[in-house]
Amino acid sequence: MPGSSFGHAFRVTTFGESHGGAVGVVLDGARPGVPITTEDIQQQLDRRKPGQSDVGTPRKEPDKVNLLSGVFEGETTGTPMLMILYNADADPSAYDEIKMMFRPGHADYTYLKKYGRRDWRGSGRASGRETAGRVAAGAVARKILAQRGVQVLAYTIAAGGIRCQTFDAAVIEQNPMRACDLEAASAMTQYAAKLKEEQDSMGGIVECRITGVPAGLGEPVFDKLDAELAHGMLSIGSIKGIEFGAGFTAAEMTGSRHNDEMAQVGFLSNNSGGIIGGITTGEEIMFRVPVKPTSSIAKPQQTVDLNGSERMIRTEGRHDTCICPRIVPVVEAMACIVLEDHFKRHAALIA
Amino acid sequence: MPGSSFGHAFRVTTFGESHGGAVGVVLDGARPGVPITTEDIQQQLDRRKPGQSDVGTPRKEPDKVNLLSGVFEGETTGTPMLMILYNADADPSAYDEIKMMFRPGHADYTYLKKYGRRDWRGSGRASGRETAGRVAAGAVARKILAQRGVQVLAYTIAAGGIRCQTFDAAVIEQNPMRACDLEAASAMTQYAAKLKEEQDSMGGIVECRITGVPAGLGEPVFDKLDAELAHGMLSIGSIKGIEFGAGFTAAEMTGSRHNDEMAQVGFLSNNSGGIIGGITTGEEIMFRVPVKPTSSIAKPQQTVDLNGSERMIRTEGRHDTCICPRIVPVVEAMACIVLEDHFKRHAALIA
Amino acid sequence: MPGSSFGHAFRVTTFGESHGGAVGVVLDGARPGVPITTEDIQQQLDRRKPGQSDVGTPRKEPDKVNLLSGVFEGETTGTPMLMILYNADADPSAYDEIKMMFRPGHADYTYLKKYGRRDWRGSGRASGRETAGRVAAGAVARKILAQRGVQVLAYTIAAGGIRCQTFDAAVIEQNPMRACDLEAASAMTQYAAKLKEEQDSMGGIVECRITGVPAGLGEPVFDKLDAELAHGMLSIGSIKGIEFGAGFTAAEMTGSRHNDEMAQVGFLSNNSGGIIGGITTGEEIMFRVPVKPTSSIAKPQQTVDLNGSERMIRTEGRHDTCICPRIVPVVEAMACIVLEDHFKRHAALIA
Amino acid sequence: MPGSSFGHAFRVTTFGESHGGAVGVVLDGARPGVPITTEDIQQQLDRRKPGQSDVGTPRKEPDKVNLLSGVFEGETTGTPMLMILYNADADPSAYDEIKMMFRPGHADYTYLKKYGRRDWRGSGRASGRETAGRVAAGAVARKILAQRGVQVLAYTIAAGGIRCQTFDAAVIEQNPMRACDLEAASAMTQYAAKLKEEQDSMGGIVECRITGVPAGLGEPVFDKLDAELAHGMLSIGSIKGIEFGAGFTAAEMTGSRHNDEMAQVGFLSNNSGGIIGGITTGEEIMFRVPVKPTSSIAKPQQTVDLNGSERMIRTEGRHDTCICPRIVPVVEAMACIVLEDHFKRHAALIA
Repeated sequence: MPGSSFGHAFRVTTFGESHGGAVGVVLDGARPGVPITTEDIQQQLDRRKPGQSDVGTPRKEPDKVNLLSGVFEGETTGTPMLMILYNADADPSAYDEIKMMFRPGHADYTYLKKYGRRDWRGSGRASGRETAGRVAAGAVARKILAQRGVQVLAYTIAAGGIRCQTFDAAVIEQNPMRACDLEAASAMTQYAAKLKEEQDSMGGIVECRITGVPAGLGEPVFDKLDAELAHGMLSIGSIKGIEFGAGFTAAEMTGSRHNDEMAQVGFLSNNSGGIIGGITTGEEIMFRVPVKPTSSIAKPQQTVDLNGSERMIRTEGRHDTCICPRIVPVVEAMACIVLEDHFKRHAALIA
Repeated sequence: MPGSSFGHAFRVTTFGESHGGAVGVVLDGARPGVPITTEDIQQQLDRRKPGQSDVGTPRKEPDKVNLLSGVFEGETTGTPMLMILYNADADPSAYDEIKMMFRPGHADYTYLKKYGRRDWRGSGRASGRETAGRVAAGAVARKILAQRGVQVLAYTIAAGGIRCQTFDAAVIEQNPMRACDLEAASAMTQYAAKLKEEQDSMGGIVECRITGVPAGLGEPVFDKLDAELAHGMLSIGSIKGIEFGAGFTAAEMTGSRHNDEMAQVGFLSNNSGGIIGGITTGEEIMFRVPVKPTSSIAKPQQTVDLNGSERMIRTEGRHDTCICPRIVPVVEAMACIVLEDHFKRHAALIA
Repeated sequence: MPGSSFGHAFRVTTFGESHGGAVGVVLDGARPGVPITTEDIQQQLDRRKPGQSDVGTPRKEPDKVNLLSGVFEGETTGTPMLMILYNADADPSAYDEIKMMFRPGHADYTYLKKYGRRDWRGSGRASGRETAGRVAAGAVARKILAQRGVQVLAYTIAAGGIRCQTFDAAVIEQNPMRACDLEAASAMTQYAAKLKEEQDSMGGIVECRITGVPAGLGEPVFDKLDAELAHGMLSIGSIKGIEFGAGFTAAEMTGSRHNDEMAQVGFLSNNSGGIIGGITTGEEIMFRVPVKPTSSIAKPQQTVDLNGSERMIRTEGRHDTCICPRIVPVVEAMACIVLEDHFKRHAALIA
Repeated sequence: MPGSSFGHAFRVTTFGESHGGAVGVVLDGARPGVPITTEDIQQQLDRRKPGQSDVGTPRKEPDKVNLLSGVFEGETTGTPMLMILYNADADPSAYDEIKMMFRPGHADYTYLKKYGRRDWRGSGRASGRETAGRVAAGAVARKILAQRGVQVLAYTIAAGGIRCQTFDAAVIEQNPMRACDLEAASAMTQYAAKLKEEQDSMGGIVECRITGVPAGLGEPVFDKLDAELAHGMLSIGSIKGIEFGAGFTAAEMTGSRHNDEMAQVGFLSNNSGGIIGGITTGEEIMFRVPVKPTSSIAKPQQTVDLNGSERMIRTEGRHDTCICPRIVPVVEAMACIVLEDHFKRHAALIA
């Protein structure tokens, strides 16, 4: 009932605040016998960590993962895996102003309203740093999914109003935006640099494609695969929507246009995004999520303080101008967690 | 782990196929002492039932609910409520063709792949008729939410490429599209009539506004209120996306534009859709869902049969040209279920 | 969070009060493709129903089950199965006295305290009639377990202070006590007749043996198989304890005596009751549960009424002198449900 | 579905093997605003740690807890609390023999059968050391329960065939057996010394009394409070049974004797152990659990090795002759966890 766990058969529980002792995850239910190393996990965490480019924050944190249980002689044992990242010491005085005011776009106000208090160092539990635990667990899921023949790939498809016109998987990890079109990436980066000077930020859209999933995954009627992916994606801070296949454009289509007709070779289109009736069709799963502009900007904004007085606030510090490239590995991780959970749930159903 | 339950503290379990013995729901966790009558539930079911207008199917079904447990002397007892709708006898021979072929856009193929068999009468478990159970449980949630001062309102905001230009709550139940703009509704209805002649169908967008929810609901980090609403909405057949507040347009906004600034009077904008960090802000909750065009169309389409041979199929029968108006009460019901669940989960947290 | 569901992968949700519209169960997660008939379920329900012998209540109720979903062409489809038993019309005036007083040993007082109200017709939700739903779902589990080679057998091992001295499986269904020793059964029946005259009742012990379960079932550390069986058994009204294998006598044993030594042929003893570390050993699973004497007795007892005044009460009506024989099929049903759930959970883990 | 979590609204997830990197717990759902210090938790862990007396193992381990999240400025924040105990470096060569053989009474064989491998250092996940996480989470629950006026007290009531004749709460923490009768404690200790010389061990019974719980806790029909306490208790290694109130002796009682009659002052007896119909009566909750003799004994016993060859084994090392005194704080911890969970679940129901 409290909300820090996700998944049923492949279950993750994250813990930690940005400036507490540690962040991390307990992963319960990983198949025994999977070869896994700290490096497998670190590799994914490195894609999420700050300081990778000019688009992101220049902060540099080591973010080294420690794998403290559930692995023996290099393989998973089937018991809970603790993956933990210790927080570096921080200077809490850096947060004196935040302590007294609600930053627009941040969860400062809502956390206070919910819990009657809040850890005002950084963003506490609401910090993007929490997603490190998801990426760690997702790295394990990714390894298992690879054994199943499944590949999960996310990338920036649009940012700052600029949309990718081509798709080239090979360039995604080669540009700071993790965009699928180098030319668009270049325009995005330039626009980001301009916004940075203006002490502003920009949003974008991340797209995810999953291949190799057989037909039959998903648990109607409530735990349809698309419903669960939506749950997982919208649980990522700064993601405020999702659409599968034709998505919102389906609203403007006719049935004869939208229905994916079938032939001996398979489906003739994929407006359904690889999921019909909540169950995979065997086609590529495809969805897009909008990523809101980074809330932390140095441009002055109006807010109120704890006493209700109106104040101006500038969120100083080194922030990401666009969070898309760092959200990409988080989207992939959550997709991996949902999929691995559903492979297991389906196995249980037919067992 | 199987998927026919939803919610934690306010928990619904639906059952039934469109042409089996019955459809319905068991609702566990309703607060004891709530006055509830069969009429309260029937009233919502009547909004969902077929045969309400020319836009929908002309089929007329009584869809009478029976409330068989959990209520005593006119009030909820706090024990499980069984709400059941018996199915009228159907002529299974009407489905002889469906039995052998996969209807495009339908879950015929995916159900067969998942379960190794499927109930081919109507759409079996994948039928929209399953949502009757959700609407029944949602009617109970709605009554309790009214006691809490919460109002949930959904309506068609766009259909067939026509978008509402004004918002008038009073007209929603007065037009067959359940649109919020009478003029747009009229254009939608005309377009629907044309498509009907062409044996085709159309999609749309349903918007939902929820007022009266205090700040503080939602269970980060995975069960953020928007994540759970997304889960609930995408579990409804034919809904393939969701966006909160600014939603996908956030991708084109700057942070200074998107962040909801605060003043003594409250938030100065609502780009977050009433939820920040997964927790309600106290502002209106607002989201939109795309509704795909009805899959069942009489226009011939290509498909394959059970033997893999290519065939043409026409889904005869009386179908909804646009499902939006009948999805509206289902969207409201799922929103009510999610909200009531979160009121209870929050109460448990701080208890 | 509300308590009317049990199991994870094989999940039952019961509903209904003894004098409401119906009692029954929704079973979600049954493997698709299992041949099942109403008769399979009715056969188990008939073992639980009242009016089978002099030891039990002479009330005769048809208790006919209706299977309204989840089965198609004689086989499970993998979707939720609704099994429902309608209640015969009852004369609520028969409960006028109960309405105002708390029957000793009954849940009248605790239900009122919990829910702020209670359905005073019969025992409402606390009625033994609720277990009909469990027996129905257990009958489905039993069929699947038989496909797995598992047999579940429960019987009365002691009652009214009389203990069985021999074990003969063949006689269990041949005597009204469902005891495993005919001679003991005869003594129990005579004692029951005497107590009936005295308007009193008697308790007993039910033992359960499960064979054919392979080594490896159970989900440490919290969902050990013995912990889950304990949960299931103590959720049956009138069962207030459990012990596995040597059970309470282990308290008087030394380690060298209690440890089950191993040889090539297998374990040399079974003090563990077939479960070590919460996981099955492959040996017979064996446990015993104490069954309290029927609370409903005609002998006058002291109680208080709703106003707190002290009163004498006699629970009139036709009650079971000893509930053991009717608890036997309920114990078997719950054991089947727990086991089938764990077969599936194990399948998910290693999938 | 995997088994390392327990509880719904107050939810613990333990992790760790006896000789991996660490053991501990993530506790999610603790009420925000509870003052908690490392010392509060350490105090309970010290009651569980080895090396407290001659009855227990002479091993001395620091077992220092680290509280790394969920607490800010000395109070709980309502977010997950990570409590972790790092394992001291161990010499794995000490386990060379265990590696190849199954120790009788241990979970060596069953873990191998379930997971296809096992961490043979110590007892891996099946080690009693796993309960440290439970005790840590239980310490938090205990603090909250104290705010609610609830006290939980467990103690040894019998061991090695010797039964306490008196009950004196004051002596429990004053004797190495944590028995409630000093004279009996002395006899137990002497018998333990004799068994130690004989390289053997002994079992016992732990009793638990809980006061201050109001009437109304428990979630019928499956999550009755006694069913959930049974689940929690039998999830503790070496506990193989439970009985509430009159327990197994109820089998020999008549209804007129067993029913707890009521008067203006309350219940006139407590054969129900404070729980009727799965809901608390407001009386003292009381249950007993049998504790099996320590499995690790130096006395030679017959077993088989990984190749199936018969072998003799002596479990060398420093083991507890009787585990009862160290199980006592674990029983209390699990009782606290179950109770706090049910306070929250009840709050959710009536919210």
